[in-house]
Amino acid sequence: MITKFTLHQKDLASSWYNIQADLPEPLHPVLHPQTGKPVCPDDLALLFPVELIKQEISTERWIEIPDEVQKVYRLWRPTALYRAYRLEKALDTPAKIFYKYEGSSPSGSHKPNTAVAQVYYNKKEGIKRIVTETGAGQWGSSLSFGGACFGVEIKVYMVAISYHQKPYRRIMMETWGGKCVPSPSPDTRVGRNILEKDPNSPGSLGIAISEAVEDAVSRDDTHYSLGSVLNHVLLHQTVIGLEAKKQMEIADAYPDIIVGCIGGGSNFAGLFLPFIKDKIDGKKPNLRIINVEPTSCPTVTRGLYAYDFGDQAGLTPLIKMYTLGHDFIPPPVHAGGLRYHGMAPIICHLHKLGLVEARAIPQIAAFDAGVIFARTEGIISAPETNHAIRVVIDEALKCKESGESKTILLAHSGHGHFDMAAYEAYLDGELSNYDYPEKKVIEALAHLPKVPVG
Amino acid sequence: MITKFTLHQKDLASSWYNIQADLPEPLHPVLHPQTGKPVCPDDLALLFPVELIKQEISTERWIEIPDEVQKVYRLWRPTALYRAYRLEKALDTPAKIFYKYEGSSPSGSHKPNTAVAQVYYNKKEGIKRIVTETGAGQWGSSLSFGGACFGVEIKVYMVAISYHQKPYRRIMMETWGGKCVPSPSPDTRVGRNILEKDPNSPGSLGIAISEAVEDAVSRDDTHYSLGSVLNHVLLHQTVIGLEAKKQMEIADAYPDIIVGCIGGGSNFAGLFLPFIKDKIDGKKPNLRIINVEPTSCPTVTRGLYAYDFGDQAGLTPLIKMYTLGHDFIPPPVHAGGLRYHGMAPIICHLHKLGLVEARAIPQIAAFDAGVIFARTEGIISAPETNHAIRVVIDEALKCKESGESKTILLAHSGHGHFDMAAYEAYLDGELSNYDYPEKKVIEALAHLPKVPVG
Repeated sequence: MITKFTLHQKDLASSWYNIQADLPEPLHPVLHPQTGKPVCPDDLALLFPVELIKQEISTERWIEIPDEVQKVYRLWRPTALYRAYRLEKALDTPAKIFYKYEGSSPSGSHKPNTAVAQVYYNKKEGIKRIVTETGAGQWGSSLSFGGACFGVEIKVYMVAISYHQKPYRRIMMETWGGKCVPSPSPDTRVGRNILEKDPNSPGSLGIAISEAVEDAVSRDDTHYSLGSVLNHVLLHQTVIGLEAKKQMEIADAYPDIIVGCIGGGSNFAGLFLPFIKDKIDGKKPNLRIINVEPTSCPTVTRGLYAYDFGDQAGLTPLIKMYTLGHDFIPPPVHAGGLRYHGMAPIICHLHKLGLVEARAIPQIAAFDAGVIFARTEGIISAPETNHAIRVVIDEALKCKESGESKTILLAHSGHGHFDMAAYEAYLDGELSNYDYPEKKVIEALAHLPKVPVG
Repeated sequence: MITKFTLHQKDLASSWYNIQADLPEPLHPVLHPQTGKPVCPDDLALLFPVELIKQEISTERWIEIPDEVQKVYRLWRPTALYRAYRLEKALDTPAKIFYKYEGSSPSGSHKPNTAVAQVYYNKKEGIKRIVTETGAGQWGSSLSFGGACFGVEIKVYMVAISYHQKPYRRIMMETWGGKCVPSPSPDTRVGRNILEKDPNSPGSLGIAISEAVEDAVSRDDTHYSLGSVLNHVLLHQTVIGLEAKKQMEIADAYPDIIVGCIGGGSNFAGLFLPFIKDKIDGKKPNLRIINVEPTSCPTVTRGLYAYDFGDQAGLTPLIKMYTLGHDFIPPPVHAGGLRYHGMAPIICHLHKLGLVEARAIPQIAAFDAGVIFARTEGIISAPETNHAIRVVIDEALKCKESGESKTILLAHSGHGHFDMAAYEAYLDGELSNYDYPEKKVIEALAHLPKVPVG
């Protein structure tokens, strides 16, 4: 009875898979907010290295993973694929449940897959310093790890309230040599303005993005980095799915349903993109792909498909995506990685084309599932992942009713070792579901930017 | 360039290796403190299941791992063996550094290897409930995970000061369904007596052991469990070394030096015991095995080889071991797992026979090494492990000087995700080395128990 499917390192992917080569219709272009015209590479060169800008718009099917990046991946890749026999038994289901686990990376999630690649391309172009923003700290710590790998200085603007309330991710960043400041900070004009009005500002992701972008454009040796949403980020994450496809073959199985949680969308897309090609090609027409989001931030299930800013402050280009409005502030659920008003354009596009579906899950039901998973499979999962585990369990229980033996594959994004306070709140009965924030969503959607005629 | 050596699950060990079959001289017996005579199995039956008592004294070389235990091991085993190329490069050393990593288990260390086995044997004998003590919570959480696997109730007496200051390990226990109370507790006579005198007692491991033992002997459905020191615990940990031997073969290498940290000794013994057989057999006469302890609790390097109690309160049988005296209280170093006055009798015996050596490392030097490891190999290690990493780096630097290309194998006991406060103290320059507690050791050694003539 094999429960853990490992790959030899010689089977590590040597190229990332680019879905843009196989989309039935091309992605909508990203637009300049002033002109309404598609953004050109030069507009982005202040923020990103040329290679990443090329990847963002490339339609090549395979993009080679540089040797230096592969060498770092080998610190933890290939990651294991597991068969969840103990969970199946506890549910008494005929379903076969597999999960691809990204929690064994240095920072405990999928994030280093792109952090390492992004730092590498920046380093190659002579960039000495990369700045970014982080909420709870998962992305900031992963980028700091990437910085340690290639000797690039990392500065992280961390939302002030998280900086003070959740010190452990910050210490992780510092252990890897990253610098972390609470945002708003006195280090930028944006930050100083806010601190002048409110010296105790708790900060927000929107403010932190603005500070990081201001920092990046103000220095020649510095670029900016984003941990999800963008096409090149999803591209880097496809190592997950490429490995999982080989591992499912070894397990002599193919998924009927693939399930994952989506915040910006990069972890789940990383798993399902190499599989969805089989659906587009007509080889697996019945393959179902379920994107799971929290009911408190229901971007795809309740948002509009429209052009919107990627950040709250409106500094980014306009992106065609499902959105709850760029000034929508989600309730403070523990799954910090799922609190984003927008979604990766690739996922939105696939959803619009009917190739993937979406489901929203309340917070408490997610933790119910997470505790069942911990007590059967051993792993204490990130709150984000718990949302996907809920849907896996629901689908497995449907199989129990119908008697079908479906194969379900879960994208397990990482462990919850830095989220134990969330488990405590759950176990103490103090977790809130938060009602669907209808009024706030309606208000935010009324503020969608007008797209100038390009 | 292979950096991660995985094993197929069909190569998982089916038996544990029992060093007692191959010792040049047998272990000294454990003595009854009143009679001075060797303890007989019946004396222990109130606390442990028969199978574990048998394993404690067995001289069979191979002891089969029950199917049910193997099935649980498969949730995370076999664990990976890594080649630390990036660390080697950073040190510019010709040494080849390997590490066997136990941090990928559910609780993040080697502890579940024995927790699962112990719960299984208790369950098989009809025990419904197991009690134990825990300091910082690593052992209590691992046993709680074991309880979840077999449906056995777990109660953990956690040293009160840790219970209040370090809530995350407690929440881990509760997530797996374990019950955890601060010790001293009102649940036992021992606890009530202490609380009457000092309602705010911070507790100690000694008190917690006393409470757990009192609880176990007072209920027919309840046994007691220990996470290190005893022979059967070391036996269960040999899965680590059995896997590592196969993996070193795949890597086409054999260690010249094996390094690990020792608190009770079970993680390191688990790795080196299957290798030391080659030294005893004369096949690898030059194999060096270095036990690493903190200078603040230098059991083997500064203690006496004598009969002493295993606990502070003097409730256990007398054990022949290196000891700092059972009432020695080590300084509050962050490596909680290394703060023990005694040591596994098997390790002490091998040390006395000249088959293994020992070295003591100060706390700050250990964290210096841990940060180098994090920035090269990615893993943020447990403070305990950092002590061993220090010696690995020192030995690798010696190779740089001498030009020798030695092969060094590190027993990496686990990650430091629940020890970030220790890294913060280190990074802020607030870590203390603590002087060698000479006066306290001398005092404690003066209180060694007199062994009655048996």
